[in-house]
Order: sequence, then structure tokens, then C-alpha cells
Amino acid sequence: MSEKTIPYKIYLEENEMPTQWYNVRADMKNKPAPLLNPGTLQPMTAEELGAVFCDELVKQELDNDTAYIDIPQEILNFYKMYRPAPLVRAYCLEKKLDTPAKIYYKFEGNNTSGSHKLNSAIAQAYYAKKQGLKGVTTETGAGQWGTALSMACSYLDLDCKVYMVKCSYEQKPFRREVMRTYGASVTPSPSMDTEVGKKILAEHPGTSGSLGCAISEAVEVATTSEGYRYVLGSVLNQVLLHQSIIGMETKAALDKYGITADIIIGCAGGGSNLGGLISPFMGEKLRGEKDYQFIAVEPASCPSFTRGKFAYDFCDTGMVCPLAKMYTLGSGFIPSANHAGGLRYHGMSSTLSQLYADGLMEARSVEQTAVFAAAEQFARVEGILPAPESSHAIKVAIDEALKCKETGEEKTIVFGLTGTGYFDMYAYEAFHDGTMTDYIPTDADLQPGFDAIPRFPGNMM
Amino acid sequence: MSEKTIPYKIYLEENEMPTQWYNVRADMKNKPAPLLNPGTLQPMTAEELGAVFCDELVKQELDNDTAYIDIPQEILNFYKMYRPAPLVRAYCLEKKLDTPAKIYYKFEGNNTSGSHKLNSAIAQAYYAKKQGLKGVTTETGAGQWGTALSMACSYLDLDCKVYMVKCSYEQKPFRREVMRTYGASVTPSPSMDTEVGKKILAEHPGTSGSLGCAISEAVEVATTSEGYRYVLGSVLNQVLLHQSIIGMETKAALDKYGITADIIIGCAGGGSNLGGLISPFMGEKLRGEKDYQFIAVEPASCPSFTRGKFAYDFCDTGMVCPLAKMYTLGSGFIPSANHAGGLRYHGMSSTLSQLYADGLMEARSVEQTAVFAAAEQFARVEGILPAPESSHAIKVAIDEALKCKETGEEKTIVFGLTGTGYFDMYAYEAFHDGTMTDYIPTDADLQPGFDAIPRFPGNMM
Repeated sequence: MSEKTIPYKIYLEENEMPTQWYNVRADMKNKPAPLLNPGTLQPMTAEELGAVFCDELVKQELDNDTAYIDIPQEILNFYKMYRPAPLVRAYCLEKKLDTPAKIYYKFEGNNTSGSHKLNSAIAQAYYAKKQGLKGVTTETGAGQWGTALSMACSYLDLDCKVYMVKCSYEQKPFRREVMRTYGASVTPSPSMDTEVGKKILAEHPGTSGSLGCAISEAVEVATTSEGYRYVLGSVLNQVLLHQSIIGMETKAALDKYGITADIIIGCAGGGSNLGGLISPFMGEKLRGEKDYQFIAVEPASCPSFTRGKFAYDFCDTGMVCPLAKMYTLGSGFIPSANHAGGLRYHGMSSTLSQLYADGLMEARSVEQTAVFAAAEQFARVEGILPAPESSHAIKVAIDEALKCKETGEEKTIVFGLTGTGYFDMYAYEAFHDGTMTDYIPTDADLQPGFDAIPRFPGNMM
Repeated sequence: MSEKTIPYKIYLEENEMPTQWYNVRADMKNKPAPLLNPGTLQPMTAEELGAVFCDELVKQELDNDTAYIDIPQEILNFYKMYRPAPLVRAYCLEKKLDTPAKIYYKFEGNNTSGSHKLNSAIAQAYYAKKQGLKGVTTETGAGQWGTALSMACSYLDLDCKVYMVKCSYEQKPFRREVMRTYGASVTPSPSMDTEVGKKILAEHPGTSGSLGCAISEAVEVATTSEGYRYVLGSVLNQVLLHQSIIGMETKAALDKYGITADIIIGCAGGGSNLGGLISPFMGEKLRGEKDYQFIAVEPASCPSFTRGKFAYDFCDTGMVCPLAKMYTLGSGFIPSANHAGGLRYHGMSSTLSQLYADGLMEARSVEQTAVFAAAEQFARVEGILPAPESSHAIKVAIDEALKCKETGEEKTIVFGLTGTGYFDMYAYEAFHDGTMTDYIPTDADLQPGFDAIPRFPGNMM
């Protein structure tokens, strides 16, 4: 098909929308390492995980073999409310950069949660409802995940308790109000509601919080309340599975127009967006059918892939959760509060960590002022005001397009535009005022809390 | 086509998108009354209007005869960045209401301005650029129009000066920052920058401003600055013309699936959305081809149609602009500051006013607490957090759907969902906290400033 026929935005028809999630683990030769019980150092059993997560989600978490999983009809119906997400040809950005590269982005921001998080929120809420639970607990950072979960719970009439990282709670009061519109309760973390919150506050009285802290609190509440389970918006295998809808749709849209991607780029905090976007393409690579260059982009202030260690570590700051083998900065690592760009998690999806360790993808870290400059450049030509998180991917997509300008290569670049920045205007204001600074941790800042990790064969640090 | 094949969202393909605007005036037997020069009481000439507006826009303003006007290719390209807007079948809302009615909404919020305003902003900025101007001035209320114009100006590299109604400037600081991201200057109105601003502040020192005040200031700056013209986001004929893209797309989407609307509902402040949505359908009604029930929904606190007078009045509070014949509450009318729901303009599009006077459409006024209740009900089932303005239409769409439930009629209801409420969270907070109150002006509050309107034959008051 000739290039002229490629529209600005590719929308799949409803009957072209994927009806299955793709589980990349099925095609991985080296499977992601299992979660370990921190007491026994043995892989977490389904029964142990079932105290924290819904039964069906435990099954998905542990399933390394089934490649395609049917999406339940109720979830498909919900998806139809805000999906398909458009795959946009960035004609205006290409023109502005004067690059021979062809740039596409998968835009996940056209829903009230403002991001891709809704894809997994509805799945997790659905399985909780199906199990007859009263409600779910979770943590949220910038607030996208909490908003997404509150939307999903409201739709299914489930109770929803959100622990929100304190600095975001204070900086983003509007997010709270959106969650309230959807009926959720929102508590700043660390809080005095939980034992782990009290402990963290005693040790770090002025802390602005972190995702790791908030996870500890939400897990504690879920496991001590009748009829509740914990749900998580990133990191876990199950989340990558649900988020594979992003990649499945992207692939269907590219295939529809006979386009082949050369480079696929995504921002990486815990890995939900990146993992979801690249999954079906990585599957092709793993099966030897096609080759792609995958690039994970993370903040220089929270550089899990590029400066972390690949080791078993706690998923949370409070060290109440299982151990996951992943690239980690240490469960005690809390990024500087002046870092506005999201992606504040100390660890990384075990699945993506294994793929990275196996040399199947690359990673880059970028500084936040450069990220906001790329965000503004993008906004002015493409019209969409991007979330700081998504703008990490924009930055590297622009870098790669400019490389093509130098070399004359007509590469096809696809990146994930995970969401909108409407609730991040304080960060944009700091960027405009010139008060935004970059923060790069020293080596001494990294891996706090590593002393507490159990030593055992196979945990190399 | 059987109902089962109607998807949740109808997206036109790029090659199905309209390439012409439709000018409803061409099919009106009674044309809207012309703007009058307040000094001579004679219709404003093209030359006189050219001091305020770009030449091409003056032509469009005065053209009561040409039914279809080609959209310039550059504007079509910009439209492709964020259009087509989806026509959504509100399956979830229908189910929640348990109504036999079929509800559709045209959703214009999937762009960073958060509303339909971008449709006219790009057109007006394009003609200003084509005329070789340096920049444009405008007013903005809730901020959607200012954001839209700053996006369009940034794209075309035009300077953009925005006068923002003071209460919105203070209540919605994030909107300012979005406009700043797109390079616009934003001044709270009334300001001390202009003669008219100084005069209004002297008379009403504590005023929270109004659209009428802000228009006066923007017009003064445009007419006293070299290379600038004024642009307006609503009320004018030219704006309704550009906004007809909403109705043209809606009609194309309905036609594609063989759907015929019975009732078409839109919120009405100055008339930009309502006029744009209904134009092509009204054309069919005017030509006797089809019949529709049209309903304009306005706030009870600013009830131009339902309690205004159909008379010539000033378009602005400062009485520097031409006179328009319209339903008006008086150019000195300033809605209560506790009214959070937008649509604060004292007048109404002359075109819509004439159609209303001729009995071709209905109008209803609704109170804001009922509007926010409808907004929240909608958000919880349809996922989208609606703007307060748009929620006026939601309220009446729900009312009509519930009537169908009583009567058993399977009416097809189409309404305009003009935008998202992400920057209106203070209003939602007040609604949740129970501090939001309703405000209905007394008869004595209406028509202030009428004494200053020139008396002449044909201006019945």
C-alpha cells in the first residue's frame, strides 16, 4: 500500500479489535524468575499469592506457558468504551524535525484516567468482582493508576481504597477529586493507618513518599481486611499480560497498512506500558520471525535498568512483599522529590528484566529538563499535551528521528504515548519558570536496603 | 442495517471526513439580523468589520447565501490531528437508565483544548496568518477557547493575547499554564491594560469579570495594535460556520449506519457548539426534508433563551462592540460567581436566536446541582468526566431518555458532549462537598444596561 494512503490516525474497526491478550512469557526461552517468599526463599505458591491477589490473577501471574488468553466479554465491552486507541502518524513532528524517519505513536490518553492504566484496572477489578470480593486496595503515584482503578471499580460497583504517594497527593489535588467522583477513598502515603506506614514515618518523618511505601500500606490493608485483595498497576506479569492489548492493537494497525516498525520505544517505570506495547513484537523476535530494536526509556533520577542491579529484591519499601528478581535500585531508594516526571519505582518488571538481561532490548536514561523540552516541542506540533512519563519516550523518539536525519535512513519509529499531562501543570510551570532541575543519584544513593535482602545462591549483587 | 452492528463508537475514516462547512443561513427564510454600527445604527459594512476581524472572516460573517464552503487544505490537515471526533453510542448509560431510547453523543473532548473550540480556532488563526497579521487577541471564560486558540496560533506561529475572565483565571490556574505551554500571553480581565478595563474596575471594583468584559478588552487591544485582529470563540456567524464540522461529521456517522435522530440536544452559552451540531440537521428541516426536535440547554443562572429578550443589544459589557439582534439578558448582566458551570454569556448567536424566534427549536434552563449530578452519573457509566458546560446537555438527554422509559418510545437522542472537565475539579469538589448552590436571577437582575441601547424602529424591548 502506498504511503499516501496512511491516514493521520489509524483506528481499528470494532470487529478488528483484539479479543485476546498475549503472554510473552510463553515464547521466552529464559522465563522470568518466580516471586519468592521472603521467609522461605521458595517460589510463592498459588495459595500464598491468593492471600494477596484474586485467584484468577494468581493463575495469570504464574502462567508462563499459555501464549494467548481470551479476554472476557465484559472486559471487551468496557474496552469498547475508550478503545481502540489510535495509532497516530506524527506527520507534523516529522515535518518539524525534517527527518526521513516515519514516526508513529500509540496514544493511550483518550480516557478519563488519562493513561493506559485503565486496560489492567478493568481486568483486575473484573476478576475481583467475579470472585465475590467487597473491594480492592492499591497504591498510586502520579494518580493515573488510582484514577483508572476507581473508574473500573465504580463501573463494577466494587469498593476501592487508594494509597497515594504523598508528594503527588499534595501536588495533584485534582486527581483526588477525580477519584472521588468515581467513589474511591484516597489516603496520602505514608499514613498512620497502617503499621508499615507508622514505621516508615518514624524512620523518615519528612518523607514525600514513594510507590514502594504506598504498596506496603495497600498490601497490609488488603491482607488484614475481610473480602479485600490488593491490585497493582505495574511490575507484575499479570499487568503486562493485560497491557498487551496496547501492542496487539498497535500490531493490528501496522499490519492493516503493511507497515513494519524498526524501532519500538516506551517509557519504563515498573514496565506496564513498555511491556504491553512491545509484547507481541517481542514474541515475533523471540520466535525468530522478525527483528526489532526495543528501547526502554527511564528517568536519570530513577535509573533501574541502566544503573540498577539484576537481583532478587523486595517489591516494596516496607519489605512485606515477596522478592522479585529484577533490575533494582534497592527497595529503600526514594527518588528526589524535585523529580516531577513520574516513573518513580525502584524496581522493574521481572519479565522485562529478564528480556533486558538476555540482550533482547536496550535501555536509556534521560534527564527531566530534556524530557519537558521534548514534551513542549511535541505538544506544539502534534497538539497533544503529553504526560511527563510519556514524554520520556518522546525524547528518545525525537533523538532517533534526528539520527535518521543525519544518516538519511528512513526508519519507522513507533513509540508509546501513554497519557496526557493535564494534571501535571505544576511540573510544566516549573519547566517554564526555569526552576526545574535535573537530579542524578550518586552511586552511594543506590541500592539502600540491600543489606536486608536474604542472601542465597542465585541472588548475585 | 441491524442494530447489533452499531459499534460503541463510530469513527469516520479519513476519506469519509467532511471537506466543507455548511452555512445554515443559506437555507433560512428569515435571515439573522445584521450587526449594527452602534453610532449610525446601520448594518456594519465589510470595511467597518475589517478593522476588527480578518478579511476572509468578515466575508464569512456576512455571507447569508453560500450553503457549502470548502475547508482549506491546511485546516483539513490540522483537523486530521484530532478529528474525526467519535459519535458514541451510550450503551452503558441506556442500560443504567433502563430506557428504550437510543442515546448517542458526539464527543469533542479528545484534544488538548478539551473541547470543540479548536474547530474554529484553527480556522480563524489560519485566515489571520494568511492575511499576514502578527497576531490575534481574544477573551476566554473557562479557558477552553483560549487554550484552543493558543494551540492553533502555536501551530501557525502567530502571536496570541488572551484576556481571561478573572474568576476563571483564579479558579483555573492550570489552564493558564497550558496556554503558556503553547506560547500565549494570558491577562485576567477586567485588567488595567485597557481603557475599558479601567472603567469597569472603577465602576465594579470587586467584579469577578464576565465574558462581556473580556471581549471589550480584547477588541480594544486588537483595534489599537498594529497587525492584530480580534477573534471570538462563539456567538458569531463565522464561528457557527466552522463549528458545523461537528454536525457534518455527526450526520455522516449517522447516515453511515442508517440512523435517524429524533431529538438533538446541545448546551448553549453563545451558541458555538449547539449551532455547529444542529446546522446540517436544521438545514434538512428548513428545506422540508426531515423533521427533528432541537433542544438548547442553558444554565438557569444565565438563561438567555428562556428569560432573555429578543432585541438588539451590545455584544460586550463595555459597549464598544456592534449591536447584535439576539436573545439577551442585557450586556451589563454578570452571572453569579458561584455559578461554576460555564456558559456565562449574556447574549446568544443571532442565527440561533432567529431560529428560536421562528419556533424551529426549543430551549430549557437547568440548575447547576442537577447538572453536576447528571455529570457524575454519566462519568460513572460512560467513563468520560464531562465538562460542566457539556453536562447541561447530558442532563436534558437523561431527562428525555427517562421520558421514553415512561412512554415506551424508542426515540433516538443525539447530544453534543463538547468537552472534558479535567480543569473543573474545584467545581466537582464543591458538588461533592455539598457547598454548591443554585442561583436563579430575579427579574430585577435581568437586562441591566438596556437603558444605554439606542432606541430605533425594529428594536422591540
